[in-house]
Amino acid sequence: MNDDFFMSLAIKQAWKFQILTLPNPPVGCVITQNNMIISISAHKKSGSPHGEVGAIKQAYYNLTQDKNILPLETSQDIHNFLYENHNNIFSNCELYTTLEPCNHYGKTPPCSLLISKLNFKRVIIGAKDDNKIASGGINSLIKENIKISYAKEKESLALIDGFKKYQKNQLVFFKYASTINGVITGGYLSCDDSLDDVHKLRDKCDLLVIGGNTVRKDRPTLDSRRVNGKNPDILIYSNSKNFDKEIPLFKIKKRKVFISNDLNIMKNYKCVMIEGGGNMLENIKEKVDYFLIYLTPQISDKDNIKPNINLEFLNYEEKGKDIKVWASKRK
Amino acid sequence: MNDDFFMSLAIKQAWKFQILTLPNPPVGCVITQNNMIISISAHKKSGSPHGEVGAIKQAYYNLTQDKNILPLETSQDIHNFLYENHNNIFSNCELYTTLEPCNHYGKTPPCSLLISKLNFKRVIIGAKDDNKIASGGINSLIKENIKISYAKEKESLALIDGFKKYQKNQLVFFKYASTINGVITGGYLSCDDSLDDVHKLRDKCDLLVIGGNTVRKDRPTLDSRRVNGKNPDILIYSNSKNFDKEIPLFKIKKRKVFISNDLNIMKNYKCVMIEGGGNMLENIKEKVDYFLIYLTPQISDKDNIKPNINLEFLNYEEKGKDIKVWASKRK
Repeated sequence: MNDDFFMSLAIKQAWKFQILTLPNPPVGCVITQNNMIISISAHKKSGSPHGEVGAIKQAYYNLTQDKNILPLETSQDIHNFLYENHNNIFSNCELYTTLEPCNHYGKTPPCSLLISKLNFKRVIIGAKDDNKIASGGINSLIKENIKISYAKEKESLALIDGFKKYQKNQLVFFKYASTINGVITGGYLSCDDSLDDVHKLRDKCDLLVIGGNTVRKDRPTLDSRRVNGKNPDILIYSNSKNFDKEIPLFKIKKRKVFISNDLNIMKNYKCVMIEGGGNMLENIKEKVDYFLIYLTPQISDKDNIKPNINLEFLNYEEKGKDIKVWASKRK
Repeated sequence: MNDDFFMSLAIKQAWKFQILTLPNPPVGCVITQNNMIISISAHKKSGSPHGEVGAIKQAYYNLTQDKNILPLETSQDIHNFLYENHNNIFSNCELYTTLEPCNHYGKTPPCSLLISKLNFKRVIIGAKDDNKIASGGINSLIKENIKISYAKEKESLALIDGFKKYQKNQLVFFKYASTINGVITGGYLSCDDSLDDVHKLRDKCDLLVIGGNTVRKDRPTLDSRRVNGKNPDILIYSNSKNFDKEIPLFKIKKRKVFISNDLNIMKNYKCVMIEGGGNMLENIKEKVDYFLIYLTPQISDKDNIKPNINLEFLNYEEKGKDIKVWASKRK
């Protein structure tokens, strides 16, 4: 139990909301006191409290059992309540945040202000923020005599690398589900938790790219009905324009559907999810930033997908009976 | 953050020591107070303190910062110290243990006695202990007016199922390392952390079964030199007795090496690890209780292994750059 351990917990919590926080970065936060874990939290979606505020709110309740904080939902309300009621209970606490606390009034007041007013004993930072508007949190904390340390910089940078790509230009990830021996067809189907998860991601993507053969064979809907979300535009990657327009994906309203072999269409979109099999992956792998793999619990007697790609595992977590793995290309 | 969440933490901690605790069961323990995590621990090896004692020792230090407990290593010493010094600090704490606390004087004094003397607010149990000698902990706690709850029984039973097989008769697991698309040859090699882990397991196994072709091709040593451990006996599963005796595995002292196509040799051993490829797995899968898979970060362009087996994922954890997965056959 050391700084690396607690920062890893914060990073793992934040990965659960990868993509879902866009256009904000994923940020995780852990608060400790004498090596005890007082709270664990993460930023969940744009407009809701930052990871630090969620963790501080929960820590306040855990330490005091004062229920008055529980109904407060906006960052401003939580800030105001804590300024009046903190009673210095955080002065022996340490706060681990995967990203330098924000230092500006945006949709929410600055986390750096809250942390320094509550007089935390020490703040441990994963990655520094290179965003010109939000950064400056570390300097603000130092000015207020808060002790600063650093931990797990590489992993904390990896956590927000997708967000940075999104912010600068575009984020592209390839999603597939396979058995644990790499079989994507005729295998065990993904569990409900994994399917829900895919629909949450579709809700956040603005373009979904899919192979023509998959569309002809699976006749998919490609919506986000499981979470009542938005439905991304579709690019069917295909040389032939010949598709049965009764396939459900064409019936979704307020959606553009492109049928084309020109991947340049992707350039008009900020967050692109690609769904497909081995051929699609082979054709498109140079354009992919991240791989999202749902591993299902089976060793299958079928052939695996086999484009040759060196990976780096970034995170894995339980999704019902499956394992959800995020990976990037190995550098 | 509820009973299931905290019990899952305890279960995950215990899985890290699966096999390594033999002839004892793996047991994990988490102590909380008002939803704050005061300590996390697990039983590490036979003769060392039980999971509960390790967690209580760490919780005492975290809550009091009294360093006098830190040098104490035996359960008896920790018990004695806590009886005198606990000062009722645990009366608002809850203890999550994956297995009913032991209730007898074995190599260590009974955990049930310690827990009731320290007057925990509540004890949450994963699995009941059906061992006739050690069981009775729950009844002892109830007699001392400790409140009992239950959580994650299925997962807690799965954690100790291998131990039960070992105790009753024999535990057999098949280990392989593959890329994330199921390729075990010519792929990316396992990382150092995974290799260390395999040597720790070999140290605890009494027989290692390996295919003849693998022995001829890889010329392995099959020892546990990375952890200075014991070296298991070897069964080379082969129709031909013809092997170059210069292959390093034959040079290891105090080891029997069988060369045979008779798997009944396995029956003389309590803990059997099988290492091999797809053919070996196909031939032996009926005899396998558990699968231990080290997934390496690569999608390879080679063929996968493909015996058809429906699995249930039991646990996965980080091993350096790899993912270590425990699975059983799906029931």
